[in-house]
Amino acid sequence: MNIKLATLLLLFLTFSAAAQEPVDTAVVRKIRDEGLKRSKVMETAFQLTDVSGPRLSGSPGLKRAQEWAIKQLKQWGLTNARNEPWGKFGKGWEIQKNYAAITTPYYHTIIAIPKAWTPGTNGLFKSEILLIEADSLPDLEKYKGQLKGKAVIYDVKTTLKQSFKPDAVRYSDSALLAMAQAKAAIPPASRIAILRARALRQAMNNFLSDEGAGLILSMARGTDGTVFTTNGAPYADSARTAAPELETSGEDYLRIIRLLKAGKKVEIEADIKTQFFTNDMQGYNVIAEMPGMDKRLKEQVVMLGAHIDSWHGATGATDNAAGTAVMMEAVRILKAIGFKPKRTIRIALWSSEEQGLHGSKNYVFNHFGNPKANTLKPEHGKVSAYYNLDNGGGKIRGIYLQGNAAAAPVFKAWLAPFHDLGAATVTINNTASTDHISFDNVGIPGFQFIQDSMDYGTRTHHSNQDTFDKLSEDDLKQAAVIVASFVYHTAQRKEMIPRKAPL
Amino acid sequence: MNIKLATLLLLFLTFSAAAQEPVDTAVVRKIRDEGLKRSKVMETAFQLTDVSGPRLSGSPGLKRAQEWAIKQLKQWGLTNARNEPWGKFGKGWEIQKNYAAITTPYYHTIIAIPKAWTPGTNGLFKSEILLIEADSLPDLEKYKGQLKGKAVIYDVKTTLKQSFKPDAVRYSDSALLAMAQAKAAIPPASRIAILRARALRQAMNNFLSDEGAGLILSMARGTDGTVFTTNGAPYADSARTAAPELETSGEDYLRIIRLLKAGKKVEIEADIKTQFFTNDMQGYNVIAEMPGMDKRLKEQVVMLGAHIDSWHGATGATDNAAGTAVMMEAVRILKAIGFKPKRTIRIALWSSEEQGLHGSKNYVFNHFGNPKANTLKPEHGKVSAYYNLDNGGGKIRGIYLQGNAAAAPVFKAWLAPFHDLGAATVTINNTASTDHISFDNVGIPGFQFIQDSMDYGTRTHHSNQDTFDKLSEDDLKQAAVIVASFVYHTAQRKEMIPRKAPL
Repeated sequence: MNIKLATLLLLFLTFSAAAQEPVDTAVVRKIRDEGLKRSKVMETAFQLTDVSGPRLSGSPGLKRAQEWAIKQLKQWGLTNARNEPWGKFGKGWEIQKNYAAITTPYYHTIIAIPKAWTPGTNGLFKSEILLIEADSLPDLEKYKGQLKGKAVIYDVKTTLKQSFKPDAVRYSDSALLAMAQAKAAIPPASRIAILRARALRQAMNNFLSDEGAGLILSMARGTDGTVFTTNGAPYADSARTAAPELETSGEDYLRIIRLLKAGKKVEIEADIKTQFFTNDMQGYNVIAEMPGMDKRLKEQVVMLGAHIDSWHGATGATDNAAGTAVMMEAVRILKAIGFKPKRTIRIALWSSEEQGLHGSKNYVFNHFGNPKANTLKPEHGKVSAYYNLDNGGGKIRGIYLQGNAAAAPVFKAWLAPFHDLGAATVTINNTASTDHISFDNVGIPGFQFIQDSMDYGTRTHHSNQDTFDKLSEDDLKQAAVIVASFVYHTAQRKEMIPRKAPL
Repeated sequence: MNIKLATLLLLFLTFSAAAQEPVDTAVVRKIRDEGLKRSKVMETAFQLTDVSGPRLSGSPGLKRAQEWAIKQLKQWGLTNARNEPWGKFGKGWEIQKNYAAITTPYYHTIIAIPKAWTPGTNGLFKSEILLIEADSLPDLEKYKGQLKGKAVIYDVKTTLKQSFKPDAVRYSDSALLAMAQAKAAIPPASRIAILRARALRQAMNNFLSDEGAGLILSMARGTDGTVFTTNGAPYADSARTAAPELETSGEDYLRIIRLLKAGKKVEIEADIKTQFFTNDMQGYNVIAEMPGMDKRLKEQVVMLGAHIDSWHGATGATDNAAGTAVMMEAVRILKAIGFKPKRTIRIALWSSEEQGLHGSKNYVFNHFGNPKANTLKPEHGKVSAYYNLDNGGGKIRGIYLQGNAAAAPVFKAWLAPFHDLGAATVTINNTASTDHISFDNVGIPGFQFIQDSMDYGTRTHHSNQDTFDKLSEDDLKQAAVIVASFVYHTAQRKEMIPRKAPL
């Protein structure tokens, strides 16, 4: 193609996009300037991670982060910044001591994390470790009467593999192209097998607990000192008693297994203290607003959000201080450039996402109702769109339409000023498992951005290594300016974002 | 090239190699059969790692491994299997308790390893952490009188990076070709800068210790829970008192640094118990033999070896249970196929390699003398070659000549039957830092094999993650058959392996 033709084509494309969906390039320039040159996103992330600590639902760490966020949002000039209760969550919980080591055949401290909502050991616990070879409840019967005060370990057949692939990756052009060319949203994969395995393990744990096992060791996903945590014991205040349980690094776990299978005696000592909190079992979302200024449109709302809660093994940097910091930074940018929106902008920092999107789901039910349950409320029709960020700390590469084809030309136009920052892809695909689903499920346009996965899957997502170190400043800055621009354009757009066909 | 021509060329190459250096293909077949089909290398590695534990010089773990190896070598029919003292090493040491956590601003157990030969904390220690901003001894003066009983942390400027490269790698064909084509051995890189930095840190630690610091935190290399340990405090029985020191995971370390620099108070609790052993300060190498059967040649020796000692953070699987297991497996294979060597075969499992090749260096001085010091002994002329394995758990890709060009055609011929297993490269290059150097330094041909590095540099070498899990059975089997074949051919060869020009 010669240059003249290319220029003409570019002009045509720019014009045709602009004809369909206006982009305010002057404001985009201001947003980029503020967000890329005077960013506070890393400072925000630092407060959420290092300063607040682990932010498990109901924990003191979450409360610290929520209180700091409210204060900060107020300082930036947002209104109505508050903790809004969404309903009953259950018990709070935190780790107050976590020590475990094998002491026979020799001493070695193990890397392990108490499963969330499991009890402690009531001081220093010592026991020989008993190998549990059982794949079902009936298999467990043979251990009846033998487990009182014992440490037990579940047999596994797995081994660890060295990784010949990079821990951290970004999307390739071809992968993005495939997403852009997808014709229909892929339905989410079934989680039945996972849920069934989890229920079986829960039932087996209950048996071990009833038999008085003093400590359960379960094998964590992860290698090289990285320990992924999973859902722990139930957090309901009515939940039955569980045994103390340590999710143990693969290397430490398999060493014990190999020794036991070779007939060697292995002894463990552990001192685990966990604390439950039952004085306030409500869940809260942090909510704050930039009120709409247009008489006709100010009742309409554009929402942005991310969950502020995390798992307990680290400080939840990529899951999801990253998303929280980006969303907070997006509204900071909009305030800093002096933006007075037509529609009301509302930021929500959800809690209890990790236990099943509780914060966002309950917020949606409380405010908007549920058409499937015939509880629709008037505000349901007034939310233009909800934007979410919760796929790690990687920069934005585009956006998932969640099957909402009518939004495609809008978002394509809005991404045009960010092609130079690597964000250009609009895919009809769904992405699941986070808070935009709470909106999408009731027919309100809810979107999650496509993000470079970095080392989310290999190192950080729900792990003991999800720390501030894993955040990339450039990525978070980029994400914040794109979100700010999307929110700006949604607030000023003539119409609300088109919706999918009613449910 | 047509097939006929290729066949002719192959015949010619085989013939020309054979003409220069014979290969006993029938024995190679037997070695491969025994080593690939009835391998015991993983069982040996299991005993050395999981069963024996960390094998720091002078530690009970090392003694367990040495005793087991002697028993095993005897069981396989080797003669004169024994612990041979090589001289005075110093104090033994092991960890008997290792617990540390930050308790303010919230509780979080940290991943950290006591530096070798540092003392413990005398029970549970609690302190605020003081940031030490000093790059030199004079910088430290400002802290005089303020450190008594305090935990201190050295400031660092570094941050952690996500890895977009694989943790584990194998040699590419092009890298092997470049090694094969190297014209002259590259002199080893200067370590002066490293040694100078280490000496400065030692002097600064002495200041902190003299000031009564209760605990020093130093930052470990490594990410994601992987902690690399370095040389600790001196092991000499005359060594001055050191402060307890924890080499701390990057993530945990930098969190503390960030909090302190933001003016936040950070408190730590730690309970570290280490035990010194002074009842026997000798160092020992495990030695065993297959006596030579040829009247004329049996006084000559072919040696193979690897160091059996390790660092203390894990069980030294790739450094160097792997090499030890492979060398033991090589002699097991040779016994199993009923081999009666012409020359005597001697296996040596060195100790204190990690503190400066002490075991091998002293063995060489004791048995062979040192031409540079005019202490040459008659046996110096009777060692055909020494083969070493100590570059991790990866398979053998060839051999370093250490500048001994005359050995090239010999080794090329001996590698010919193993091209299908990925071992073909003979390079004039040196490789440094392990026990073959002790031989090479006194003019005895000492060789180290080229090995795929796997995740040696990124995850295992001197780290808390150097565990049995990181060993690849196929790689170790391959290495054992190649070493067995090299030892076989060296034992039976008409001449000894050619030497470099005398020193």
